Amino acid sequence: MPVVGMAGGGQLARMTQQAAIALGVPLRVLAASPGDSAARVVADVRVGDDRSLDDLRAFAKGCDVVTFDHEHVPGPHIRDLEKSGVSCHPGSAALAHAQDKLVMRERLTGIGVPCPAYAHLPPSGPIPALEGFAREHGTPLVLKATRGGYDGKGVWVIDDLGARARELVGRLLAEGVDLMVERHVPFRRELAAVVARSAYGQGAAYPVVETVQQGGICVEVIAPAPGLSRDLAAEAQRLALAVADELGVVGLLAVELFETPPSGDGPGGLLVNELAMRPHNSGHWTIEGARTSQFEQHLRAVLDLPLGSTEPTAPYTVMANVLGGDDPDVYRRYIHVMAHDPGVKVHFYGKDVRPGRKIGHVTALGGDLAEVRERARHAADYLRWGTGTGDGR
Amino acid sequence: MPVVGMAGGGQLARMTQQAAIALGVPLRVLAASPGDSAARVVADVRVGDDRSLDDLRAFAKGCDVVTFDHEHVPGPHIRDLEKSGVSCHPGSAALAHAQDKLVMRERLTGIGVPCPAYAHLPPSGPIPALEGFAREHGTPLVLKATRGGYDGKGVWVIDDLGARARELVGRLLAEGVDLMVERHVPFRRELAAVVARSAYGQGAAYPVVETVQQGGICVEVIAPAPGLSRDLAAEAQRLALAVADELGVVGLLAVELFETPPSGDGPGGLLVNELAMRPHNSGHWTIEGARTSQFEQHLRAVLDLPLGSTEPTAPYTVMANVLGGDDPDVYRRYIHVMAHDPGVKVHFYGKDVRPGRKIGHVTALGGDLAEVRERARHAADYLRWGTGTGDGR
Repeated sequence: MPVVGMAGGGQLARMTQQAAIALGVPLRVLAASPGDSAARVVADVRVGDDRSLDDLRAFAKGCDVVTFDHEHVPGPHIRDLEKSGVSCHPGSAALAHAQDKLVMRERLTGIGVPCPAYAHLPPSGPIPALEGFAREHGTPLVLKATRGGYDGKGVWVIDDLGARARELVGRLLAEGVDLMVERHVPFRRELAAVVARSAYGQGAAYPVVETVQQGGICVEVIAPAPGLSRDLAAEAQRLALAVADELGVVGLLAVELFETPPSGDGPGGLLVNELAMRPHNSGHWTIEGARTSQFEQHLRAVLDLPLGSTEPTAPYTVMANVLGGDDPDVYRRYIHVMAHDPGVKVHFYGKDVRPGRKIGHVTALGGDLAEVRERARHAADYLRWGTGTGDGR
Repeated sequence: MPVVGMAGGGQLARMTQQAAIALGVPLRVLAASPGDSAARVVADVRVGDDRSLDDLRAFAKGCDVVTFDHEHVPGPHIRDLEKSGVSCHPGSAALAHAQDKLVMRERLTGIGVPCPAYAHLPPSGPIPALEGFAREHGTPLVLKATRGGYDGKGVWVIDDLGARARELVGRLLAEGVDLMVERHVPFRRELAAVVARSAYGQGAAYPVVETVQQGGICVEVIAPAPGLSRDLAAEAQRLALAVADELGVVGLLAVELFETPPSGDGPGGLLVNELAMRPHNSGHWTIEGARTSQFEQHLRAVLDLPLGSTEPTAPYTVMANVLGGDDPDVYRRYIHVMAHDPGVKVHFYGKDVRPGRKIGHVTALGGDLAEVRERARHAADYLRWGTGTGDGR
């Protein structure tokens, strides 16, 4: 059996282990500490720094494929591994587009993929660039760190170009953060298209989902996106498969999208927001809700095995993220959640509980969307607050 | 989070790990070697002998619950652990009925559960006892070791009481094997009823399945058992729940049943063949085919959490065991199996491949039973032989 190495010991590696167990594929994880989410459930854990070339080289030795739990392994290190003959999937060339938002925007717009208007902010003269962009696209604007952001970190909405905005830009540049600005898109809702592409070039697309964000963190995913027109759903899948192909992604690609409202002179449409090249929060619903989970699909893609069926197992699947509350004893709250709803599936990542931190998710399935959403929300709220209504907030 | 310890490092512990990962429950495994099926996929492995009281005691230290991957941990050792305050589920008193077929028969017939006629063979005078039993029940007969059998081992069908049978009995007794004899039931087919019972006493029953055996090894499980009358299905579930309750089983209980054909003076019925108190081969289909897998259900039961929904996810689910063939490179054959049928789910146990050994299973789901069976059989045959038709045999 080939050995798959995953750099990063978070919950994505943890859930990949469940799929690796089924396939009989040994999973090796490079974790920062033995207490990492995935390190707690994998036999072959290497503790090290996934930003250190030496640690990556030692980790890759004996792996047939190296893949990633996150985007933070430095591109030059991945290129170095590739030069020394390690199969990295996705490869450094593809992964650059998930690591740097400016590289991604330039490439996507270059191949005709619709994106929000954007501009780089040169550290030498950021304010004139910002002012020029605001004149063309209006305010509010979205300021983004080109690298290193996640879960709403590295993204700031700027209402106007007043003193606070100027101070923020100055401070970030002084800290060495590379910045870009984007139009604040008046979207109807956010969608995600998760696709897989194997080394051989086979593609597979999951149903397009709606993602609901609060404070920059995804709190709920509805599969499929309710009321999405067949045309837009097909267009989102086509876009995602085309991006995977153009960028040569091997593994999973999650394309986060804005669905824009119909305007006076045309129908609604799609704009690409972000890319991720790994199992993605918007695909957790597939563990129970699709014939092949995104984690198994990622393994099949990076191992160059034929991809699995993405067929849904229920009319609707809703995933709700569980965030940490004030009381860290989540397990104590299992009893209510499981007794209340024997069909809800609980996933806990084995992480220390901190308020607001993603510590797990729940999944509900069924034919009545309102009911399925309510079931998922109740379970997630209860696991966080010890009450299913959010009153505990 | 409570720590669950599982004695035994086989595929049942391995698949329990997938469920433990989702629940966030740390699973500790007592394995005979680091190469055991479960030891390859669990972070917290203790290598030791699960028939040694010292090893069991050391293993149990720090476990909130101890449960079992098989029936071979000696009952007196489990009683010793219980006396020292370790929660063992199932407990020694219940487990005795899965460890000793004579104890099981005496108890079940005592509480009115229908079983085949049976008799103990006293080592002092086995042949007269055998002859007496044969006069009453005819031949063929089934000779069974009261303890230690599995997968057809420890079971012998005796066509008549000739020299070969007498020699077999003499040899087994001389080896110290305790023997019993049972009527050879002319059954229509074999069924299994898998139920769970929590420490609190909550019960949950999975749909009754048909199990297809070859050479004493289960090769196929069809869920639900096709054409089984509602009455018999309900009776099988009722029986299994009653046995779980009477015996005080905590965890899963699989009841293997014979469905007997209608006779001149009455309808067909059910006879209990064997009991197992753990996740069971006849429940592997639940990983994809039921809302709650038997592995998650076992964990919920032994942790005294509310039990999960046993609702099926498809009209039919068929599981086919994958046995080892002559070529140990099973992975090479994944490509065909996955390309041929993107919906089939492959489970490989990470065991060394030996001809005839259970090394994995495959699952297919759908609405057309003949097609679903053919898909599962093709995949299992191909993984064994490199051809999907059985021609390779």
